[in-house]
Amino acid sequence: VGRKDKETDGVDVMKEMGIGILGFGTVGAGVVEGLRRNRELLADRTGIRPVVRRIADLDLTADRGVAVDRSLLTTDAAAVVADPEVDVVVELIGGTGAARTFILQALAAGKPVVTANKALLAEHGRELFEAARAAGTGLYFEASVGGGIPVMRALKDGLIGNRIESICGILNGTCNYILTRMEREGAPFDEVLKEAQALGYAETPPDLDIDGMDTAHKAVVLASLAYGTPVPMSACSVQGIRGLDLREIEYARELGYCIKLLALIKNHEHGYELRVQPTLVPQDHMLASVHEAFNAIFVEGDIVGETLYYGRGAGRFPTASAVIGDIMEAALKRQAGGTDPLAAWILGRSDPQMMPPEENRLRCYLRMGLKDESDVLARVAHVLGSHNISIASVVQKERRCGAYIPVVFLTHRARECEFAAALAELDGLDCVEPGVVRLAVEDFSGDLA
Amino acid sequence: VGRKDKETDGVDVMKEMGIGILGFGTVGAGVVEGLRRNRELLADRTGIRPVVRRIADLDLTADRGVAVDRSLLTTDAAAVVADPEVDVVVELIGGTGAARTFILQALAAGKPVVTANKALLAEHGRELFEAARAAGTGLYFEASVGGGIPVMRALKDGLIGNRIESICGILNGTCNYILTRMEREGAPFDEVLKEAQALGYAETPPDLDIDGMDTAHKAVVLASLAYGTPVPMSACSVQGIRGLDLREIEYARELGYCIKLLALIKNHEHGYELRVQPTLVPQDHMLASVHEAFNAIFVEGDIVGETLYYGRGAGRFPTASAVIGDIMEAALKRQAGGTDPLAAWILGRSDPQMMPPEENRLRCYLRMGLKDESDVLARVAHVLGSHNISIASVVQKERRCGAYIPVVFLTHRARECEFAAALAELDGLDCVEPGVVRLAVEDFSGDLA
Repeated sequence: VGRKDKETDGVDVMKEMGIGILGFGTVGAGVVEGLRRNRELLADRTGIRPVVRRIADLDLTADRGVAVDRSLLTTDAAAVVADPEVDVVVELIGGTGAARTFILQALAAGKPVVTANKALLAEHGRELFEAARAAGTGLYFEASVGGGIPVMRALKDGLIGNRIESICGILNGTCNYILTRMEREGAPFDEVLKEAQALGYAETPPDLDIDGMDTAHKAVVLASLAYGTPVPMSACSVQGIRGLDLREIEYARELGYCIKLLALIKNHEHGYELRVQPTLVPQDHMLASVHEAFNAIFVEGDIVGETLYYGRGAGRFPTASAVIGDIMEAALKRQAGGTDPLAAWILGRSDPQMMPPEENRLRCYLRMGLKDESDVLARVAHVLGSHNISIASVVQKERRCGAYIPVVFLTHRARECEFAAALAELDGLDCVEPGVVRLAVEDFSGDLA
Repeated sequence: VGRKDKETDGVDVMKEMGIGILGFGTVGAGVVEGLRRNRELLADRTGIRPVVRRIADLDLTADRGVAVDRSLLTTDAAAVVADPEVDVVVELIGGTGAARTFILQALAAGKPVVTANKALLAEHGRELFEAARAAGTGLYFEASVGGGIPVMRALKDGLIGNRIESICGILNGTCNYILTRMEREGAPFDEVLKEAQALGYAETPPDLDIDGMDTAHKAVVLASLAYGTPVPMSACSVQGIRGLDLREIEYARELGYCIKLLALIKNHEHGYELRVQPTLVPQDHMLASVHEAFNAIFVEGDIVGETLYYGRGAGRFPTASAVIGDIMEAALKRQAGGTDPLAAWILGRSDPQMMPPEENRLRCYLRMGLKDESDVLARVAHVLGSHNISIASVVQKERRCGAYIPVVFLTHRARECEFAAALAELDGLDCVEPGVVRLAVEDFSGDLA
């Protein structure tokens, strides 16, 4: 006995749920394929059978790598949203233009929406969640951060009893792939980026990824859920990995670190800190073991302590897994008839209380070229000290060529604005080569170290 | 605006949910403390305010480290279950006796039950889930596996679209603590165990932990959810870490491995494999970075690929975090009025299809003492080969003392029954010291290596 028997007893026991997909690209095709492969499994598990009713895309001729009945395809996304047979709308168009319009239309029609669109959520989150709340329906976005990793579920369900103290993660698979290859092969940034683009691991142009904005979008979405308020993008300070010099990776390794593009969200007494930066991570820390296109997110709750979520952060099937999870949640909630409290949760606090980025306190890695003069180290140390930056360690390398000797400083924690002022002052010294390199350092003091 | 305003507008918007707690031990006190600390946060997030109405324990005098109104306390658990003000019952008594009775009473009364009781779920899961399904209510058990790590949520929500291919995890914090200390300090098993007991990290007697049964209980609960059938304990082969010799840790290290007590669940074409064993894990694998009392669980889905969940596997607050998450899920589901599909899910397939343990295929680490005779290695290799066990590497150590030379073999994959037969035959040879040590080896071929 079990569900199988019920299915044959009567069609009313096994409910069908109509899915409309907007955007038939890589992820859209993965969703169609995944739903097809595991449709009976989903029906077994939930009593609901998801059925793709319509798929909208502007290009109906491209090969998506999945066979679908031509009659499902249309170029008219609005018609898919309006179709009475479509119960759940899946937005995979991307960007902040048409995607926003169709999501608002679907929500206004009382239909739950599933989206993977971090840029849209980061830029227009408040508007979208307000629309969902007003319509009493749900907006689901697990797929927008960390690909197939169910980290949003962790925040909103499993860790619901926790005040979130901090989140720290590798959120962009392209950057992590580039950093992994630079570290393993000693290949320079430009070369690895070109190869990644040729292999389809990086977009052309790659700006959103390598300049850190994609990571920042995801950090903002995570922070919005963690802190119950739509966090503005302006609250996030962003530094990408574009042009990262191989020397940074070498010097970091000698000091016992590797370099990762990290998003950091911290709950301070006076506000939230939010920043994206190439960061030195101790080699024995779990984040240092996150290679290639994988993502990993540490979440620290006041009750649970540290937890970690790891998996593939992008790609056809991992992202489809998250979309399908959201489709089923929307379907189950719709069947139960209750309203989803998530929109209200994210709109729960009226005051974001973000810390001004310049007040962030962090450790830094500084690399600079210094002239070979007797008092130059003392002069640099004096400048740093005058800005309340104390030095944890100094490594002076041998001169490779040119007039400057490379020197690497690891500092103790200091305020962002002090670093900015100190670097401006150092850049004005004739004994310092222009262009001091600055990266963040995280030691994860406590259990994570 | 926001929820705060609604609260003051009318009491009907913010619903109270009555909680009854059975068992006021370490975790029970953590739940009371956690709910008190974050009650307003929970109300903000969900619109429901959880209120502890009654707490039952046989011992009402012990100091629980949390202040509660004496009038909440009772020795009468049945009265708590029956109390009309109690909407959700939290079972933290443990064991398979009274806990089972009270859970069945609560379910029969249509009240959702939250439990951390892996032994009960592993031994009586079918009965409990059938009772929940019959009553149309929920049985929630996130806290039964992995402490505060929301891995059950991942399986039943985030990864719902996936067929689960494999699960591999460190599920017992006590064993991992002992192994970590043995590895770091070179301290022998008995000494570390005694210290762990003195510090309260290990129970007295420690049998459930160090003999692997606690890990097996958790593996069975994970497998039941992953495969949609109450898996019987008899399907799990179990080997603990009791008496593990420091030499195993040293030799494993020399070979590039560390030793972890792993639970392994694999989905094969002809059935499910389920085993608990001390296992050699490559030093650069993420599971090798799981130290002290932390737990970590790899879950591989057919769509999402590999994902990992990590956090504190036990203790007052981590476990309380999971219990509170389940309380809120039960409360939200109860408010929505729908039935929880979880019990039906776990009872979804009538045939467990477990692979007979003797058919499991695995790599092994074998350490044996061999007499210093010219053809002895050849004789051992011949025995292994005659049982279809091929050797991947051999390390012969220098003799320390006694008549035997220690030799370590890493084998390729072979069937469990072949290993058993080969070891029986080796034990009969006069050139082999009685008591060959056998551990499992996992190389996580693919992305995890």
